Amino acid sequence: MFDKVAIVGPGLIGGSMGMAMRRRSLADHIVGIGRRQVSLDAALRVGAIHSATLDLNEGLAGADLVVLATPIGTFERLAGPVAEAIDPGAVLTEVASSKVQVIETLQAALGACEDVQLVPTHPMAGSEQSGPLAADEALFEGSVCIITPLQDQETEAFPRIRGLWQALGATVVSMSPSQHDRLVARISHVPHLAASALMHTVDEGTMHYCGGGLKDTTRIAASSPDLWMDIYRSNREEIREAMRDYIGTLRRMMDALDADDMPALREQLEQARCRRDELAVRLAERAARE
Amino acid sequence: MFDKVAIVGPGLIGGSMGMAMRRRSLADHIVGIGRRQVSLDAALRVGAIHSATLDLNEGLAGADLVVLATPIGTFERLAGPVAEAIDPGAVLTEVASSKVQVIETLQAALGACEDVQLVPTHPMAGSEQSGPLAADEALFEGSVCIITPLQDQETEAFPRIRGLWQALGATVVSMSPSQHDRLVARISHVPHLAASALMHTVDEGTMHYCGGGLKDTTRIAASSPDLWMDIYRSNREEIREAMRDYIGTLRRMMDALDADDMPALREQLEQARCRRDELAVRLAERAARE
Repeated sequence: MFDKVAIVGPGLIGGSMGMAMRRRSLADHIVGIGRRQVSLDAALRVGAIHSATLDLNEGLAGADLVVLATPIGTFERLAGPVAEAIDPGAVLTEVASSKVQVIETLQAALGACEDVQLVPTHPMAGSEQSGPLAADEALFEGSVCIITPLQDQETEAFPRIRGLWQALGATVVSMSPSQHDRLVARISHVPHLAASALMHTVDEGTMHYCGGGLKDTTRIAASSPDLWMDIYRSNREEIREAMRDYIGTLRRMMDALDADDMPALREQLEQARCRRDELAVRLAERAARE
Repeated sequence: MFDKVAIVGPGLIGGSMGMAMRRRSLADHIVGIGRRQVSLDAALRVGAIHSATLDLNEGLAGADLVVLATPIGTFERLAGPVAEAIDPGAVLTEVASSKVQVIETLQAALGACEDVQLVPTHPMAGSEQSGPLAADEALFEGSVCIITPLQDQETEAFPRIRGLWQALGATVVSMSPSQHDRLVARISHVPHLAASALMHTVDEGTMHYCGGGLKDTTRIAASSPDLWMDIYRSNREEIREAMRDYIGTLRRMMDALDADDMPALREQLEQARCRRDELAVRLAERAARE
């Protein structure tokens, strides 16, 4: 499928892509590019990449696919050097959790590279862990990968990247960058804030008594604040709107409690339960397709 | 440990207690008392009880331990008949998720029964499922059981009930009924409202894209609104206070987003992460003790 794949940042997502591509023989050679030798060594050890380099130019030379899998906060710094080092005709893809701002940054840097085709993607998979040691070759099986193709390129690069994700086991869905950002604010970013805020309502003393409920509800609050800060910065407007909705819903629940209007509260909980049951069905269907 | 145990409502919790007591030979005979034959048949089939009856008087006759394991909403109706039917000298325990109001109801009914000792407990275990078919004899292993003993009875009944829960694999903690209600508002009730409210911020279209994050965060939103309504009614004041805290935390996060004050948001997320890491350690320690 590809001759040489360069993964800039072979961590949880990049490393899992490397592993999965190797297992499925989708690339002749996969090189990992990073800033710290110890991370690259780990990526090599877990089999995420064939070779490693600290030198971006060396890594990108001859690559027909470049995967930008570093945190969003590095994109400003990396976009220029990547645009300079990438081969003409190569496909550039990235896996960031927000799209509108990320695409602006990359397109501005790529301005001059007419031959390079950017295909933004967001694999909806991951865990609260990070780094190459958390990489998992089955991470994308049964997952959804969103692609936000740019207007002028539904032709060549897009089908290749779509095929790649399908080969890795993902269901591929295409939408606009702004649709994507609105979506993830609701299914991912606000749930992270909600889970984090819950940890502020329990203190050390109460924690001792926690059962499975709080454990599951707050699992995503264990993930790295630095990764999330990048996301919050780059998708701030959509997150603010979704947060306003979320706080508004909680306020309506609170109003029902204040007024002792239990039928109103019950109705809100019943709607939530129905929707949650529907979510369980969708997830089960997806698992069955795997 | 007990000659005859009567479990009023052998569902998820009552049925699991029955199973676990049978497996450990803690009772010579366990009778299940219910209102619907089909539920009692299910409890018999899964081995939660030795015999079943729809007749409260028949079930309670001769029992030295009576376990009230029905939803909180039934306590008003059941307290009187239980007080009338219970043997003098028997121990009465219940497993409701809130305590202050529940104890008031039961004590008012038990007024005349001087020999009956009430020991309120709250096993911090369960699942989003309910009913005898969801019962599990290992449900309490490694869990915490809170006992809120009444002032005059630390002597005889309390150690017996503490011993029972320890034998079922739980770590027993004792506290006052109001401490208990304040605690569970924070570790259980507000997380349920928070998870339910999250389901209102996603619609059918967005649900298709959900990953594991939203799935775990909203798991408890799948549980029965009716059970929860009983809890919300009986612990309303503590829940309102904890909800005020929770919404306040979310508002502070929102303020940071509005003001683009990313260091403030980062600090809030970092505190949440530290606390969540601590919770993971506590849960791992508890699992290791199992």
